Amino acid sequence: MARTITLAVLQTALSDDMDANIARISDLVRDAAGKGADVILPSELFAGHYFCKTQDEKHFAKAYPWKTHPAVAAMAKLAGELGVVIPVSIFEKAGPHYYNSAVMADADGSLLGVYRKSHIPDGPGYQEKYYFRPGDTGFKVWDTKKGRIGVGVCWDQWFPEAARAMALMGADVLLYPTAIGAEPPEVGEGDTAARWRRAMLGHAVSNCIPVAAANRIGTEQDQTFYGTSFICDEAGEILADLGRTEEGAAIAAIDLDHVDRARAAWGFFRDRRPELYGALVKPQSEG
Amino acid sequence: MARTITLAVLQTALSDDMDANIARISDLVRDAAGKGADVILPSELFAGHYFCKTQDEKHFAKAYPWKTHPAVAAMAKLAGELGVVIPVSIFEKAGPHYYNSAVMADADGSLLGVYRKSHIPDGPGYQEKYYFRPGDTGFKVWDTKKGRIGVGVCWDQWFPEAARAMALMGADVLLYPTAIGAEPPEVGEGDTAARWRRAMLGHAVSNCIPVAAANRIGTEQDQTFYGTSFICDEAGEILADLGRTEEGAAIAAIDLDHVDRARAAWGFFRDRRPELYGALVKPQSEG
Repeated sequence: MARTITLAVLQTALSDDMDANIARISDLVRDAAGKGADVILPSELFAGHYFCKTQDEKHFAKAYPWKTHPAVAAMAKLAGELGVVIPVSIFEKAGPHYYNSAVMADADGSLLGVYRKSHIPDGPGYQEKYYFRPGDTGFKVWDTKKGRIGVGVCWDQWFPEAARAMALMGADVLLYPTAIGAEPPEVGEGDTAARWRRAMLGHAVSNCIPVAAANRIGTEQDQTFYGTSFICDEAGEILADLGRTEEGAAIAAIDLDHVDRARAAWGFFRDRRPELYGALVKPQSEG
Repeated sequence: MARTITLAVLQTALSDDMDANIARISDLVRDAAGKGADVILPSELFAGHYFCKTQDEKHFAKAYPWKTHPAVAAMAKLAGELGVVIPVSIFEKAGPHYYNSAVMADADGSLLGVYRKSHIPDGPGYQEKYYFRPGDTGFKVWDTKKGRIGVGVCWDQWFPEAARAMALMGADVLLYPTAIGAEPPEVGEGDTAARWRRAMLGHAVSNCIPVAAANRIGTEQDQTFYGTSFICDEAGEILADLGRTEEGAAIAAIDLDHVDRARAAWGFFRDRRPELYGALVKPQSEG
């Protein structure tokens, strides 16, 4: 029997009302499941507005332990009901620590565990180092009922090491929930939508693996998120995507047996030279 | 004073006559230098036809020690005369070993050393594992009179580890001499030109570094090389390129101070987590 997986990425504007956002995402999940999606990816931190725009201690009250976050509870229930896999991006509280995390809800409604975002950005509009401790879980690949799925979170998507590590761990596909937008021209790099895609299409090609990213849209204060969520195949060809203001889901079916054969034939994993990659793991303390 | 570098990538069909090829490449180098290029990149193994199409022991006679290869001697002389840097791709003989190598000719005509291709492909049309021992030099970044330059060779260009290692070593730009073409549909992946670019545009974005690749064109036996040589900036935007059958040079000037500022502001190198990248250097013997 052919091994196929149908991916969906959800794209919507979000309010600052968690219950309303959970309801909105739930509607989109139901729609995508109705269209045959096996794995459904909402965007990053969908419980509310992207609060990392500024540094304000009041936002720490929005974090919950990963097992009891209301968004996790709602998505796990939905995942079990619909028989779909949902990676759930949340602001996690773990004792004195706070993480930007993704909780994996499997298609029977069980929770497989938590991944804590490894790479934390910091810059105008993205004050994440104030809120999130760099993740301590290492990269994770999840054996779900629908396939073996690697999930990175937003800033992770710019790092070839994260994609490679998940591919080496046997991921069938890589998923990235995201919250990224165009900066006002006076700060930062302006509109980064094209390079955002390029980085991930590069991961797809270099690892011969399909990649999907879900980004939010809408304007929160003066920060406009650029959407352009997509699913690409193992050659980096876009299979389905959404525009900068489009609400909804992009859905694509992937033949994982074809991807496996292509990955074998290309031979990247045959030809790697780990003994030459020492520079990549040199500890920061050694300069 | 602004730190700028002007790159040129050369694209031409090649005969199986080394003297004629050296003369042809020399003409293109002169033209590019006349247009202001500082660093001029010919394509891979330009001394002759791409002999790795098949396995034939007669081709080993085409290898020379790197210091005395006729192509190296000619390019070093030209580099000194024109005051330009030229990475010279050759089939190298080193005692009993044979490598696919790049020799760095600096702008005063001196030779800075040799890099031996780390990643060796093997597949229909690319029987390189028969000819070339995997390189033993590790990745190299060259302090030339025109800038700090990382050079990988062809198959290396698909490996994020190679690009990252050279970026970590302080490269200002990454260069890749190449010989790659479209396969007949009955073998391999067919036309790979789009994914070839995507892999390298990904390296550019992920390392915030300009990338240039020079590929050959023309048909040798039934193997057609697809050209599409290019120079892109640190955002992966194409600055200059050539078509699939176009002879000549693509040339672009790059403001290295701007690139340095962008790389600092993006913060990828600030946010890396080497302690989480262990999977990337796991020895092959450990599975």
